[in-house]
Amino acid sequence: MSAGDRGNPPHPVLAAAADAALGAYRDAIRRHTPAQLAEHVLDGADGTPSMHIDVLVEDAVIDAVTALGANVLSEERGWVDRSSALTVVIDPVDGTANAASGVPVSCFSGAVAVDGVFTHALTSWLHTDDRWWAQAGVPSYRTSGRRAAEGAAVSLLRPHDRNWEAWSRVARAAGRIRVLGCSTMDAALVATGAIDAFADAGSDTHRLMDLAAAAVLVPAAGGVLVDAHGRPFELDLDLTRRWSGVVAATPELADEMCALINLA
Amino acid sequence: MSAGDRGNPPHPVLAAAADAALGAYRDAIRRHTPAQLAEHVLDGADGTPSMHIDVLVEDAVIDAVTALGANVLSEERGWVDRSSALTVVIDPVDGTANAASGVPVSCFSGAVAVDGVFTHALTSWLHTDDRWWAQAGVPSYRTSGRRAAEGAAVSLLRPHDRNWEAWSRVARAAGRIRVLGCSTMDAALVATGAIDAFADAGSDTHRLMDLAAAAVLVPAAGGVLVDAHGRPFELDLDLTRRWSGVVAATPELADEMCALINLA
Repeated sequence: MSAGDRGNPPHPVLAAAADAALGAYRDAIRRHTPAQLAEHVLDGADGTPSMHIDVLVEDAVIDAVTALGANVLSEERGWVDRSSALTVVIDPVDGTANAASGVPVSCFSGAVAVDGVFTHALTSWLHTDDRWWAQAGVPSYRTSGRRAAEGAAVSLLRPHDRNWEAWSRVARAAGRIRVLGCSTMDAALVATGAIDAFADAGSDTHRLMDLAAAAVLVPAAGGVLVDAHGRPFELDLDLTRRWSGVVAATPELADEMCALINLA
Repeated sequence: MSAGDRGNPPHPVLAAAADAALGAYRDAIRRHTPAQLAEHVLDGADGTPSMHIDVLVEDAVIDAVTALGANVLSEERGWVDRSSALTVVIDPVDGTANAASGVPVSCFSGAVAVDGVFTHALTSWLHTDDRWWAQAGVPSYRTSGRRAAEGAAVSLLRPHDRNWEAWSRVARAAGRIRVLGCSTMDAALVATGAIDAFADAGSDTHRLMDLAAAAVLVPAAGGVLVDAHGRPFELDLDLTRRWSGVVAATPELADEMCALINLA
């Protein structure tokens, strides 16, 4: 499950961040109950409440990254400026609800941006330390190549009342759906070809850090990341921005999924 | 994630079966491509086509169990009679579509029945070798204790056209849904309290081996396994029988989920 077999090592700052996240996650689940891990301890920079487990892991990652001289942009603390050209966008625990409750599907995910352009990414599964990584423009994994929703294996962000109709259209058009509750793992699975696509079916839930790694991992594998509503995905210090990410093995499959989401 | 901390070891025949499954699974994914693993190689005793990965793992498990003198009841080969009072019901690879495609969420699952009554169960995650086990009547894990669907974390078998309406009612009533594609892991997560319930929302997809471990693991943790349509769940050599399993932290939550599934 690693790209390392192909002799393409992860960015050293991302590797250090993943190491820090793993240690802090293991410490957190050993020391705290699920209720303690799920406690809302502050309001994050991204505009959502932060759970205790998010903050515990984020603090460890920020320490590791800033010690190497890079800036950090993270969901809870926001922008930590080290006057570097290199910024690391991190989601310390993607799939926080899973992590806090004991469903072993949550990831650390990070992407490096140099002067505002994403260049490297790494997503690591906190339960197993499986890691997926890539560098922009360097072939790594390979997507499935599937072009149509019919028969496709599609992961979806869980539905909300506001996007139930769009969610249902995608779910019923696909061959097989999954809801894993961890967007960054879903994107890694699209990159490796294990699934054909992943989408937030128009609920505008995705934040910068939910998609930053996908923006590197998936194109490097021949796939695409687009927004269901056509907005550009870009580095932005305003963490209250939202997207509906559609991650797909091919541009054709992404187009069909966007059309299903947007059908009036 | 193990019950071993509580000094309650798994049944030795199930432990041997899980060891055999793990070895065969690792060998299969190392030697074969996803397309080879997903190839339909025979029609199983349960009435569904058997994938290559199922057969590879099942053969190893049958060898391990029959060497210990027990009968086996398994999805592909059916009934292997060793004239023992002890029968092991196995699902060699639950979540076969995940396992074959590279989504690392699939389990070996087995239950021991003595003279037709389930007494022990063990489910093991093939990607990590995490194991969950219990003995009937011996307290092990503890469910969440949640009594209502509102706010509940509910896993669902993926929807089919024939149960879309019932599936939608459960999905919209729950607080948070997941579709992991692995019923036996879902049942283990209900037992440990990581999620509140798991259901086949009335599609009658569940076979004996999808639910056999749940019939031991979940009651031992204070939860329940019922069929959405009120049929008894019991050992039966006719593997074409189907159920719509509802696995819940409490009888009250199971009742509410059955009512949602059956609403006219």
